[in-house]
Amino acid sequence: MNSYGTLFKVTLYGESHQEAIGVVIDGIPAGIEIDEAKITSDLKKRQAGAIGTTTRIEPDLFKITSGVFKGYSTGSPIHLMIENVNVRSKDYEHLASQPRPGHADFVSNVKYKGFQDYRGGGRFSGRLTALLVAAGAIAKMVIPFQLSHELIQVGSLTDLSKMDEYLESVARQGDSVGGLIEVKATHMIVGLGEPFFNKLDAEIAKMMFSIPAVKGVEIGTGFKGLEMMGSAFNDEFLDETGKTKTNNSGGVSGGISNGNDIVLRVMIKPTSSIQRPQETYSFETNQKETLQVGGRHDVCIARRAGIVLENALAIVLADLYLLHKAYR
Amino acid sequence: MNSYGTLFKVTLYGESHQEAIGVVIDGIPAGIEIDEAKITSDLKKRQAGAIGTTTRIEPDLFKITSGVFKGYSTGSPIHLMIENVNVRSKDYEHLASQPRPGHADFVSNVKYKGFQDYRGGGRFSGRLTALLVAAGAIAKMVIPFQLSHELIQVGSLTDLSKMDEYLESVARQGDSVGGLIEVKATHMIVGLGEPFFNKLDAEIAKMMFSIPAVKGVEIGTGFKGLEMMGSAFNDEFLDETGKTKTNNSGGVSGGISNGNDIVLRVMIKPTSSIQRPQETYSFETNQKETLQVGGRHDVCIARRAGIVLENALAIVLADLYLLHKAYR
Amino acid sequence: MNSYGTLFKVTLYGESHQEAIGVVIDGIPAGIEIDEAKITSDLKKRQAGAIGTTTRIEPDLFKITSGVFKGYSTGSPIHLMIENVNVRSKDYEHLASQPRPGHADFVSNVKYKGFQDYRGGGRFSGRLTALLVAAGAIAKMVIPFQLSHELIQVGSLTDLSKMDEYLESVARQGDSVGGLIEVKATHMIVGLGEPFFNKLDAEIAKMMFSIPAVKGVEIGTGFKGLEMMGSAFNDEFLDETGKTKTNNSGGVSGGISNGNDIVLRVMIKPTSSIQRPQETYSFETNQKETLQVGGRHDVCIARRAGIVLENALAIVLADLYLLHKAYR
Amino acid sequence: MNSYGTLFKVTLYGESHQEAIGVVIDGIPAGIEIDEAKITSDLKKRQAGAIGTTTRIEPDLFKITSGVFKGYSTGSPIHLMIENVNVRSKDYEHLASQPRPGHADFVSNVKYKGFQDYRGGGRFSGRLTALLVAAGAIAKMVIPFQLSHELIQVGSLTDLSKMDEYLESVARQGDSVGGLIEVKATHMIVGLGEPFFNKLDAEIAKMMFSIPAVKGVEIGTGFKGLEMMGSAFNDEFLDETGKTKTNNSGGVSGGISNGNDIVLRVMIKPTSSIQRPQETYSFETNQKETLQVGGRHDVCIARRAGIVLENALAIVLADLYLLHKAYR
Repeated sequence: MNSYGTLFKVTLYGESHQEAIGVVIDGIPAGIEIDEAKITSDLKKRQAGAIGTTTRIEPDLFKITSGVFKGYSTGSPIHLMIENVNVRSKDYEHLASQPRPGHADFVSNVKYKGFQDYRGGGRFSGRLTALLVAAGAIAKMVIPFQLSHELIQVGSLTDLSKMDEYLESVARQGDSVGGLIEVKATHMIVGLGEPFFNKLDAEIAKMMFSIPAVKGVEIGTGFKGLEMMGSAFNDEFLDETGKTKTNNSGGVSGGISNGNDIVLRVMIKPTSSIQRPQETYSFETNQKETLQVGGRHDVCIARRAGIVLENALAIVLADLYLLHKAYR
Repeated sequence: MNSYGTLFKVTLYGESHQEAIGVVIDGIPAGIEIDEAKITSDLKKRQAGAIGTTTRIEPDLFKITSGVFKGYSTGSPIHLMIENVNVRSKDYEHLASQPRPGHADFVSNVKYKGFQDYRGGGRFSGRLTALLVAAGAIAKMVIPFQLSHELIQVGSLTDLSKMDEYLESVARQGDSVGGLIEVKATHMIVGLGEPFFNKLDAEIAKMMFSIPAVKGVEIGTGFKGLEMMGSAFNDEFLDETGKTKTNNSGGVSGGISNGNDIVLRVMIKPTSSIQRPQETYSFETNQKETLQVGGRHDVCIARRAGIVLENALAIVLADLYLLHKAYR
Repeated sequence: MNSYGTLFKVTLYGESHQEAIGVVIDGIPAGIEIDEAKITSDLKKRQAGAIGTTTRIEPDLFKITSGVFKGYSTGSPIHLMIENVNVRSKDYEHLASQPRPGHADFVSNVKYKGFQDYRGGGRFSGRLTALLVAAGAIAKMVIPFQLSHELIQVGSLTDLSKMDEYLESVARQGDSVGGLIEVKATHMIVGLGEPFFNKLDAEIAKMMFSIPAVKGVEIGTGFKGLEMMGSAFNDEFLDETGKTKTNNSGGVSGGISNGNDIVLRVMIKPTSSIQRPQETYSFETNQKETLQVGGRHDVCIARRAGIVLENALAIVLADLYLLHKAYR
Repeated sequence: MNSYGTLFKVTLYGESHQEAIGVVIDGIPAGIEIDEAKITSDLKKRQAGAIGTTTRIEPDLFKITSGVFKGYSTGSPIHLMIENVNVRSKDYEHLASQPRPGHADFVSNVKYKGFQDYRGGGRFSGRLTALLVAAGAIAKMVIPFQLSHELIQVGSLTDLSKMDEYLESVARQGDSVGGLIEVKATHMIVGLGEPFFNKLDAEIAKMMFSIPAVKGVEIGTGFKGLEMMGSAFNDEFLDETGKTKTNNSGGVSGGISNGNDIVLRVMIKPTSSIQRPQETYSFETNQKETLQVGGRHDVCIARRAGIVLENALAIVLADLYLLHKAYR
């Protein structure tokens, strides 16, 4: 199911190698100024070009066909679409029969009974994350919070001053690495999140795991909190606004924003498409074989993924912000 | 919002110190044998009693008032309720004015404008997880998969043969610790999960973070995958069923079950209620003060939480299983 | 699926002859004064007793187990339940094999594969409408509008001063009749309703047709408008508040409340259970037979249904009212 | 909110005078043959041209950008869009300040705070019903039932052999009329519909009232059933398949399809836009004035609406059909 949200609701469509991908944003209040330059700017942050990213550069020119009039949202759904260009379909046609390790080829072939559009990963392509960036850019126009992201680890490398060198070495090996990204929201208010099941952290986690290649999410201190005792983990209140001395909770208490910064870290797995040959079972010959995956790929998708996570967070916050207003 | 699921839908209600808590399970197919002994058995696994768990022991006697006839589900919603007994309300009345560090007292007071039932944490009480256990026990009667859980770390302790001793020491310090729990589903089929937003791992993560005290979730190899290259992380196919040599993906590819075991690990934070005094801001005197939290509490809630996570996973799987059937 | 609403969400459970029926009201804002006397009062309006209504009188004593504290809503779901008493189960046991004309016995036996609780109509019993009355009584505490209903036709009788006499005659024939009920909401505001699919009239119609025995709904002038031309049907504006000279639109324009009174009429079919024998196919002997339906029944359920429709409308308005607030 | 459905989910976007209108169809099973000629054929049935319909003829050329590969659905959402051409925007610009009687101009101006795209009725334009036709044409490819519609009354005229003459006379008066349309589904199965709130008739009514200009819906015998007694209204069973002698229930018992034909009638109000001057309050001069509505309009929109209702019904049936399958 391709919709997210209760009041600020995004619906995605599209596959990597068909005519277009797009998003319908339903529930945006009337009268929000829609600044297209901000959408363009965020889409640029996701584009390839840096060392370790693919040479398939998509211009990501979007158009808004509906829901904006004289520069403001009309209260009707906004439809934004991006045409697929720079597509090389023949690189992928063998995927119908030979699934790549780490990819969704195998599961989609079973689930969709062979009818899926397998080209370029189809609906599983990272390409659809451009829509999250665009929709999130609009979400940011709705919410009063400030969002940011930071790449904090690439593969096993934590000193990112050496990132280019490191990724070039990984590329030379025909291999790939993952990464760790921290996402933050500041200038928060108290009260976002609707227990039991629409808790702020639950919605964030759901959204993050919807993004291809995410394999772990932690809020605040996260897994490191295993080493701490409650007396250290508990965040001491400093004043009547709820500001705390530490932020082990990552800005979320009982599934509700507590006014402190929201902080989360997301683990992106190593890119599944690698240049070096891989041992795998061949679904064509029914025996073990060596597979060489073609196409142009990122050595480290995490290098481009930060803005996707940031804007995906914005979508979650926009939805919970409108929900919060409904109950005031 | 207190409902989870599209086809197998659970709706929770209740607060720790009111008359009862309960769950409505909507969308259960007619004709499922409802074995109450299994529900009782799972509820027992969540009960306190072991070292490091609270002395407030709730009998958790449930009754099913609807939706079951002659031992089978009727196709109408199942309503299961647990009366609240062994309740000491006066322990908590000061919480209306003095929020406890690490708890939801502060945010709920702001969000619900002072009208929340603050006794015993109210709706934020871990008590409501008994309902997840009960609903999950029923979910397990719907799905053909096998679920299990294992406590793999308690605070900083990984050699769990020493757990009692360790927790007694923590208790003596008036402190608390968290834990790490691994949850598994075996005998899986290929195809559960509905991209883009109802992916299997996204739904699992949402459900896990809905559970009080969860601060991190990883699927498969998770965060450790940062140290691996793609060539090692990719799971090599072994045969035409999709079985793989390794299971770094944790049984999920592209958000869809790939037929291998589902494996996830969940981080439970240290219990917020501790016996030792805590420095905090007093909302009564408007200055820094020392707070002593009363009541009976778990030193390590993770010791009891495994069955909650396991059965919460069952709810997710039951919903996606029915969705999967609809599209066959 | 037994839930209605997006922000003010009611979930029903229960079957006529099991232990209890109940409703969970999720999304009620914190701080609403919950006046139980009003719930009791509305439930009384639905009770039998008048001529033409059943002699099975249910006391409809409800209890609220959750979500209310010190007389106010807490922001947590409200759970209200009514125990089933005065139940004569053996009257119904033959229905498992012999479906009654006009009832849901046949379809439920097919749909639920014989596992349904067939006693007293089970989940199809009009008994569940008591829950709509109770939930609607609470909805009225949330909205600033005034609701009312009026029985305007009973069978073919429009001069209701003769209703008792007419219904006694119908009863003597062992037969039943339907009725026409008008429901109104006054003191409306402009703006309730969320096009395209959550229009005010669409939600009202859905809710009304959810109520057993409803076979027709019209808004404003309704079907009589077939005889009118546009120049007569269009409602002329009288002032800047949107007040109109006529109200052919029934208070709804483009699916949105226009500030004038909401007016709708609902057709209730003749009660399906009648005392006189009916020709029908026997599913036991596989031939045409004469069936005599037992039990205690209403000759004209429409006499008791008005408060159900009124309060069902309140649920719709409460949900759209909260939605409206979210987008302001 | 612009989405309908649980498993077969359509999301509409677009406004009459912006770049395009479109629909995303989510949840369509993989492997359905998508015959574009059938979509074109159904869209033609909605087009103007006959006497009594507007001279604004839209070509309604659609394109499918996603979700179809090699002629079959891929399991990914189908996105279908229609560009807006033949648009005369200046005819409508005064509507921002002077709402037309019978239209949504007034309510949308209040609800959307003046930010709505008022041109051509914007999102309230009948133009969006082309999307229901297109989506419904696809829905028909999913379901095994046969659908049809019939215009049975135009204004006060029931002998439709005189329709052209009658509508010319209405046009000469600068006026408009409504109509009554019967919609049917045959070759039904038993079991579609999910009580309590997703009953078949409830979903049908909701869908029908979502369509602009609908003011009444009745199922089966409908309002005429007021004149009947239960002994006549009840449908006598004829055999073990549930076939009945009469079909007063319109194919729906207890909100579930009973295997007999689904029959409903829908009342379409007289077109709000009329050529003759109308008395109304002027929001520009703040006094009573005479308003002359410009533009090209239908004298009787009911003449074109049948295929909209038919295909809207198909959407409802497709959703309930998939739901039904999930619970088998």
